[in-house]
Amino acid sequence: MLMKRIFITGAAGFIGSNLVDRLLADGKRVVGWDNFSTGQRQFLAGATQSPNFKLIEGDNLDLPALTKAMAGCDAVFHLAANADVRFGLKHPSKDLQQNTTATFNVLEAMRANAIKRIAFSSTGSVYGEAAVIPTPEDAPFPIQTSLYAASKVAGEGMISSYCEGFKFEGYVFRFVSILGERYTHGHVYDFYKQLLEHPGRLQVLGDGSQRKSYLYVQDCVSAMLHVMDRGTAQQAKHGVEIYNLGNDEFVQVNDSIGFICGALGLQPKMEYTGGSRGWVGDNPFIFLDTKKIRATGWKTSLTIEQGIKRTLEWLQQNQWVYDSRQ
Amino acid sequence: MLMKRIFITGAAGFIGSNLVDRLLADGKRVVGWDNFSTGQRQFLAGATQSPNFKLIEGDNLDLPALTKAMAGCDAVFHLAANADVRFGLKHPSKDLQQNTTATFNVLEAMRANAIKRIAFSSTGSVYGEAAVIPTPEDAPFPIQTSLYAASKVAGEGMISSYCEGFKFEGYVFRFVSILGERYTHGHVYDFYKQLLEHPGRLQVLGDGSQRKSYLYVQDCVSAMLHVMDRGTAQQAKHGVEIYNLGNDEFVQVNDSIGFICGALGLQPKMEYTGGSRGWVGDNPFIFLDTKKIRATGWKTSLTIEQGIKRTLEWLQQNQWVYDSRQ
Repeated sequence: MLMKRIFITGAAGFIGSNLVDRLLADGKRVVGWDNFSTGQRQFLAGATQSPNFKLIEGDNLDLPALTKAMAGCDAVFHLAANADVRFGLKHPSKDLQQNTTATFNVLEAMRANAIKRIAFSSTGSVYGEAAVIPTPEDAPFPIQTSLYAASKVAGEGMISSYCEGFKFEGYVFRFVSILGERYTHGHVYDFYKQLLEHPGRLQVLGDGSQRKSYLYVQDCVSAMLHVMDRGTAQQAKHGVEIYNLGNDEFVQVNDSIGFICGALGLQPKMEYTGGSRGWVGDNPFIFLDTKKIRATGWKTSLTIEQGIKRTLEWLQQNQWVYDSRQ
Repeated sequence: MLMKRIFITGAAGFIGSNLVDRLLADGKRVVGWDNFSTGQRQFLAGATQSPNFKLIEGDNLDLPALTKAMAGCDAVFHLAANADVRFGLKHPSKDLQQNTTATFNVLEAMRANAIKRIAFSSTGSVYGEAAVIPTPEDAPFPIQTSLYAASKVAGEGMISSYCEGFKFEGYVFRFVSILGERYTHGHVYDFYKQLLEHPGRLQVLGDGSQRKSYLYVQDCVSAMLHVMDRGTAQQAKHGVEIYNLGNDEFVQVNDSIGFICGALGLQPKMEYTGGSRGWVGDNPFIFLDTKKIRATGWKTSLTIEQGIKRTLEWLQQNQWVYDSRQ
């Protein structure tokens, strides 16, 4: 699929900035859009050296600015989101505004610019507490248990409606948790932060038995580009394709702690908050069926253990991210 | 389940006003809320005679007014919605605002008033072009094909997240098309309108082969009250129960035309626009599996044919609705 000038929302974020770098390396022109509420300017330090990169600072809730920024692009990766899954109940309007309404604005800005091709970062959390594990894309219609996932389901629904109604070409990716360079959010980040502050003890939300799957960010970026290159959504019944993205294995939180502490040479005293869930709306077992994306020929390059170690190494070399995100 | 003072959004609407009358007949106190964008004051003519009924005019997008209006109630039926399914693509923001954001406001107003019990009018359209027919509540995770259904999925997701996170007690009802007294919207309304204007010809969107199921409004109201009386969502895993509501049969649009023309004694010349769908995003076959609601003991009182005829009789006796809704 020909993509020449690509618009990325959340371009200064973890996944967004890795995607920017990959596309620039592939010789594409990229317009990066970010409101820098959680994005990091340093993640775009390399990109901003490229004549093919243009950074525009703005917010998805500002539809006129978004529409103007998108002019001349032929594809959109909509990655910007409130990803603060755990704290959804503390500020319920955040998911509605930053995820649901923001996605609507992205679609409207695309429509105004006659851009039809969109990739969307959804989440495996849309399956709720899945009845079928590993969970395929057509699992039983789930019950949402978090405002974050509910807002992603809302986004998916609007995107597929635009594909049906306005002949958009949509690629929806339901991610497991992503790991790797520029990771600034999640359990490896939290655990390493704690161990920097007090190497002798580690507090864990829940009982540590939660089972989750993770994917290395470069594999995530590769998967999205690989699928969009094939362009098959154009032939799909409703103009949209949905893919689970994840590793073909899962680990327990306790396994992950073992990898981290092993790599750091630490043996902290464990303090579990208890219960099978880390927080209200947490899902004790996330493991996606990834047969569909694998059938396209895409493969992972790192296992979960390798991904966790790579993430930890990056955090060790980039401790500034802790200071920048207090 | 004890409900003493019940708040109804969309109280002046088709289903809302029938629910108001039923609850008043049952001796309940009812607060009706409507912005009268499509609601009809005449539908509440009887209710407003009751000392147990209070009508408050307001819009779901006005959260402070909504919060104030809801004070003192112990249950909410959230029925207000943009139900303009066919024209979603003409004004895409309408479903987002009047359905998604409105539902969020209803939930926030409930939270501010410590009201936990909510019934929500969702739609069988959330199943998209269902892979399984008759379609059960846990059908394969569907692809949304209309902005209306996408906004209802968004509403369902927020409601279930509030049930999980804030211990709400939620009842989500996925309706087929509803028929009966005060019906002002849908194919019987449209066909009768045409036949009033030109009895000799009838234009039909699509090829008339679309298969749909319908439910009589009194049966719909009975189903909601029957399910809520049982109060079983309190014990449900995530605090929410989802029920399909429909008849255990379906008819073709052409069957429906036969019932209508037969009752009117007309033989109009048929003009089909053609194609298996009446409009973009129309679903050529909607038939819900209603085993779950039937297992609770609820039954329908009218067949689809009886419901269509009852609707037609009501329209014949209430032609003023055509003048009020130009």
